Amino acid sequence: MPVLVMKFGGTSVATLDRIRRAAKRVGVEVAKGYDVIVIVSAMSGKTNELVGWVNETSPMYDAREYDAVVSSGENVTAGLMALTLQEMDIPARSWQGWQVPVKTTSAHSSARIEDIPPANINAKFAEGMRVAVVAGFQGVSPEGRITTLGRGGSDTTAVAFAAAFDAERCDIYTDVDGVYTTDPRITDKARKLDKIAFEEMLELASLGAKVLQTRSVELAMRYKVKLRVLSSFEEQSDSAGTLVCDEEEIMESNVVAGVAFSRDEAKMTLVSVADRPGIAAKIFTALSDAGVNVDMIVQNIAEEGRTDMTWSCPTDQVKRAEAAVHKAKDAGVINFQEVIADTDVAKVSVVGIGMRSHTGVAAKMFQVLSSESINIKVITTSEIKISVLIDRKYMELAVQALHDAFELEKAG
Amino acid sequence: MPVLVMKFGGTSVATLDRIRRAAKRVGVEVAKGYDVIVIVSAMSGKTNELVGWVNETSPMYDAREYDAVVSSGENVTAGLMALTLQEMDIPARSWQGWQVPVKTTSAHSSARIEDIPPANINAKFAEGMRVAVVAGFQGVSPEGRITTLGRGGSDTTAVAFAAAFDAERCDIYTDVDGVYTTDPRITDKARKLDKIAFEEMLELASLGAKVLQTRSVELAMRYKVKLRVLSSFEEQSDSAGTLVCDEEEIMESNVVAGVAFSRDEAKMTLVSVADRPGIAAKIFTALSDAGVNVDMIVQNIAEEGRTDMTWSCPTDQVKRAEAAVHKAKDAGVINFQEVIADTDVAKVSVVGIGMRSHTGVAAKMFQVLSSESINIKVITTSEIKISVLIDRKYMELAVQALHDAFELEKAG
Repeated sequence: MPVLVMKFGGTSVATLDRIRRAAKRVGVEVAKGYDVIVIVSAMSGKTNELVGWVNETSPMYDAREYDAVVSSGENVTAGLMALTLQEMDIPARSWQGWQVPVKTTSAHSSARIEDIPPANINAKFAEGMRVAVVAGFQGVSPEGRITTLGRGGSDTTAVAFAAAFDAERCDIYTDVDGVYTTDPRITDKARKLDKIAFEEMLELASLGAKVLQTRSVELAMRYKVKLRVLSSFEEQSDSAGTLVCDEEEIMESNVVAGVAFSRDEAKMTLVSVADRPGIAAKIFTALSDAGVNVDMIVQNIAEEGRTDMTWSCPTDQVKRAEAAVHKAKDAGVINFQEVIADTDVAKVSVVGIGMRSHTGVAAKMFQVLSSESINIKVITTSEIKISVLIDRKYMELAVQALHDAFELEKAG
Repeated sequence: MPVLVMKFGGTSVATLDRIRRAAKRVGVEVAKGYDVIVIVSAMSGKTNELVGWVNETSPMYDAREYDAVVSSGENVTAGLMALTLQEMDIPARSWQGWQVPVKTTSAHSSARIEDIPPANINAKFAEGMRVAVVAGFQGVSPEGRITTLGRGGSDTTAVAFAAAFDAERCDIYTDVDGVYTTDPRITDKARKLDKIAFEEMLELASLGAKVLQTRSVELAMRYKVKLRVLSSFEEQSDSAGTLVCDEEEIMESNVVAGVAFSRDEAKMTLVSVADRPGIAAKIFTALSDAGVNVDMIVQNIAEEGRTDMTWSCPTDQVKRAEAAVHKAKDAGVINFQEVIADTDVAKVSVVGIGMRSHTGVAAKMFQVLSSESINIKVITTSEIKISVLIDRKYMELAVQALHDAFELEKAG
């Protein structure tokens, strides 16, 4: 029988009632003839409780013990979901990561899945089991210890199972009903996309449209797993949600798929840096060592032999970044006149695989912002994305204007 | 290095503070030179929460899923205890049942431990680990599924590890400071016993002195594991608590070790049963099938060819017992005139291995009760125990009088 993977996040299994509702959705797919693999998260709040206990017990905790403790929430949900399905007369059983086994690396708390041998679960499917309920987010290391995949790891578990079992589709049930052209709170013209390409989803996800864990999308792209994001709180239909898929499967599409934004960006500039070979490496190594997540980078020539180096990073990392560059200056590694931080900026990006074949998107974006008198502070581009830093007070205006200009309210 | 097993029950690990306190006790033993195996229960209340969810989800639950869900509480405590020990610079790690592995039968929710291969843990001890923290109450079946040992199973886990690792002693930390000659709430002359024989402990445990799970005592007796029961809420010393051990290790001892009692006993009588061969088997099979836990049984000849059959059972099973005998009567399996239930009785027992070599204990017991004008309704005896059913209103008086008469306030 064809296999379907269905993943339910923490809010979708937060109570016994919600687990029952999720189980009914599973029942619908079983009735259609699918063998179903259900991936569950911990009931919402549980993982945070466990993480809190670990942090209170041991601030510099042993990640192996962290994983052993924190993975227990998913085990509870998996058992309860299996029991709920059994109550509906659907043959089901739960599987913990080590039982499948979900083989991972030994990088505790951020392990990567290396292999999911399908034999054990397939043997049960062959015996008549219709649903395998698998505890998400966890696996087992070569040393036989429990590992976790990091926050949001259940999405990755789901996609990895879809790949390992050659599933027809991987449905991610969550508390949003799909991926939108932009945040509907910014403009009511925002439209739910029926389909989006993996590459677009990656850009949107990392830009703040937090629907799917980035790694799960990368994995789906690599193994060509059809991913569907849909709400567990709305009526089910075959066209519900958004399908994240290979761009070849998207026949019609807008040049621009969506407008993303991020409020908590800061722009930092090192003024008058001595411009010698390797200086950029030294600056960004110092920032990286200090745990600063640098996003955009721009270098301007200021005067002969000196340069200004500008980057963006999350607002709450500004102090850390300042300390890092001052420390590097004191150590004689770099040299600069001053460091300026502008924490009143926002990032706005347009994303679309259509940009590959359509020129003029950047020009149009800049014209739109200019006509609204919005000053662009930094620009970066990739093959399918153009991002700008602007004053934060213009962020909503910019998103609305770009959404209108690229006619995103209309299906492509 | 010699191995010590230390078990901490739910109240002893109920909060992070209590886990820290328990870890300090472990640290004391590590400092003495022991390699320690710590067995932990779930934080108190957690198992009940999980059991509640399972029951609400599926009243006739699949015991395999019950076990998968309910075992998660111990995993959390094991990880937190290992982290706490690490914070004290004691090399420690947690082990879940399947990791050790604790091999059990497939009788889910009431599995029995079959084998605990010590190789994995011993390899870590050889590498310098000083404490193995093991999740109690759980194991793994031959099919690779998680099993639990039933309520109180962590005591059994502890004793089984002590046997498997040839431990010098198995210390059970709980919320009482030892085994008493009787309940101190009944008489302030009750005295904590320094030592008690396994057989005596078994009789006291099954009679209501709920300090240790019966199975754990049986196991300790079979493998000659020295068991010590002591409080995790009082200062530690080498003479703390009560040592449960082989009777040969108890040099001096009273003839009677303690006086046990049970309040919630009911006396039931089937009046005028046709007395033919096999009738007792039919009656008690009917009661057993209905889930009635029959304790004492007495048969009296009432008249020619008829007999009265009397038994005791927990008060809350009286209705079930009545229904069972009426059903058997309606089916023509048994025949009786009426069934009488007396729910105002209590059981009082004197227990002591000294009875084996001392005659007259029964006579003395009956004299003591007679001198207090307490009427005895049912008597049963075993090699080291004499039990009587009496009116419940005389229970405390009987316990006090027997405690005085056998001079239990004095060490033997």
